[in-house]
Amino acid sequence: MKQKLLCGVDIGGTKLAAALYQQSGEQVLRLEIHDHVDLANDAFTERVVSLVEELFERAGISAKEVVGVGIGFAGHVRFKEGVIITTSNFRIPFKNYPLKAKIEEALKLPVVVDNDANAQAYGEFRFGAGRHTEDMVFLTVSSGIGAGIILDKRLIRGVTGTAGEIGHTIVKYDSDVYCTCGNPGCLMALSSGIFFPELFRRKLEAGLRTETGITPETVDRVNGKLIAAGFAEKDPVCTAIVKESAEIVGIGIYNLFAMLNPEAVILGGGLMNLGPEYLQMIQESFLSHVHDMMYDRLEILNAELGSDSGLIGAAALPLEQGYE
Amino acid sequence: MKQKLLCGVDIGGTKLAAALYQQSGEQVLRLEIHDHVDLANDAFTERVVSLVEELFERAGISAKEVVGVGIGFAGHVRFKEGVIITTSNFRIPFKNYPLKAKIEEALKLPVVVDNDANAQAYGEFRFGAGRHTEDMVFLTVSSGIGAGIILDKRLIRGVTGTAGEIGHTIVKYDSDVYCTCGNPGCLMALSSGIFFPELFRRKLEAGLRTETGITPETVDRVNGKLIAAGFAEKDPVCTAIVKESAEIVGIGIYNLFAMLNPEAVILGGGLMNLGPEYLQMIQESFLSHVHDMMYDRLEILNAELGSDSGLIGAAALPLEQGYE
Repeated sequence: MKQKLLCGVDIGGTKLAAALYQQSGEQVLRLEIHDHVDLANDAFTERVVSLVEELFERAGISAKEVVGVGIGFAGHVRFKEGVIITTSNFRIPFKNYPLKAKIEEALKLPVVVDNDANAQAYGEFRFGAGRHTEDMVFLTVSSGIGAGIILDKRLIRGVTGTAGEIGHTIVKYDSDVYCTCGNPGCLMALSSGIFFPELFRRKLEAGLRTETGITPETVDRVNGKLIAAGFAEKDPVCTAIVKESAEIVGIGIYNLFAMLNPEAVILGGGLMNLGPEYLQMIQESFLSHVHDMMYDRLEILNAELGSDSGLIGAAALPLEQGYE
Repeated sequence: MKQKLLCGVDIGGTKLAAALYQQSGEQVLRLEIHDHVDLANDAFTERVVSLVEELFERAGISAKEVVGVGIGFAGHVRFKEGVIITTSNFRIPFKNYPLKAKIEEALKLPVVVDNDANAQAYGEFRFGAGRHTEDMVFLTVSSGIGAGIILDKRLIRGVTGTAGEIGHTIVKYDSDVYCTCGNPGCLMALSSGIFFPELFRRKLEAGLRTETGITPETVDRVNGKLIAAGFAEKDPVCTAIVKESAEIVGIGIYNLFAMLNPEAVILGGGLMNLGPEYLQMIQESFLSHVHDMMYDRLEILNAELGSDSGLIGAAALPLEQGYE
């Protein structure tokens, strides 16, 4: 018998993508729109449903020919119920919106809704850099830091569904750098993109020079792209920030290792575009903290699937939940 | 048909206990010896085997009447193989010793060997404070800090078997307090018993007074008992250390929450004898860090089973591994 297809939806703050895949991971058809950003709640749901229906129609298949619909959503999801708790990635915020139930009702198919980091993690686990492992953590290092944790081939979601918030674990509890969550010294506050302006200001205050033209008055213009360009040209401030970021991310990975002892940590997200030197500094920081406590090598690897990891991962979520 | 009995063995640095339980958790018979501490490897195994045989004999049962033998061991265990990697709790160190295979061969029964924190966690999960949960973390706060993590009713062990080393996660990466593992600012280095002398010295240096008679020259005499007595009498140094310990343990629990989103954290170990005020300070520290990121309440509770949690938990490990 012919294997059913997988259907994934990736709901982000700027793009809404839907795609069909073979169970091997081969893409059948992919659609992407951007006119969802001003919608919320039922109007938003209708846009998702019409995109999936268009996908089926263009591919010439019926709903019976897919396992289900997996959705990766950029926000907090109450997993068991498939309810959007909250999100800050859309112009109109969702609050306690039952996305899973609404889309199931419209499409008459099993629907699995999870957050985007979990979908990306599952994509890398099933089809990407983690496909040979049973236990892995996917870390997205970008404007913030998120994670999806897979143990014994299953995603770890916790009682609510918010497991994986490693970006908000504290690595310097008395830091004077405060995270958006309100705490000092979160992993992401000390290493990720949205904190680069603050880190830049501190490097300037500490007397480091920069050739980027940025001054204490213009640090708000600092972003990942500027840091990457400066790092490539060995700008002292940019280099110091990238080194510190790698050091801290390595500590976060060490903490993950101590707590969960996975086989691999797979790194994705925009900051990995800083290149192999950044990955190497992260690996070195991890190794400098693990001492003799590691008995099986932890692999720290680049993600393989790029920006569609969340889409293909979402597509596979119904399989992870036991649908066939 | 009569349910088979559970048989547990708890191997610690000072005591070796073995016991039989009904599957409900009711104790049938318990034996304890202390003459194992100078033995190692095969001589040690023989002592364990003879204790279990004595247990069966005194209870008037045959090996066929137990599900298997679960062993909690105070050291690092390569779980899948049941090999002791290393331990610092015995006079004669074990290195890569196949304890599971040796005891299986002698007793002709399924044997499960795990580290003692996992056995304690499983005891509290199955019979104690965590028995109503599906996801919980057991934290032992004592001379050091260890943990056993249970997600979806299963112990999380990782690829080697060393998951749960939360005591060595870093909460202040630039601390000048160094842990026994070699890293600065481990959770346990900033909050647990073996670091009390160092923390005491620092409080004295910071100008805090003490009525305990301890001076910078005699801080090596500081232990949990002295801190507990001083805390009860509101000694300034002891009070400051207990408060700081609770604050840091609360941060460790917050990090666990962010990463794993469990239903409950169950606290055991000697420092919990500091009393309800210590538990309350830990809860307050957790709540002060979690802000609005918690959608289902995380319970932080005292363990219920006392010092035999590891023994009864070990006894249930063969059930956890699917033996019947």
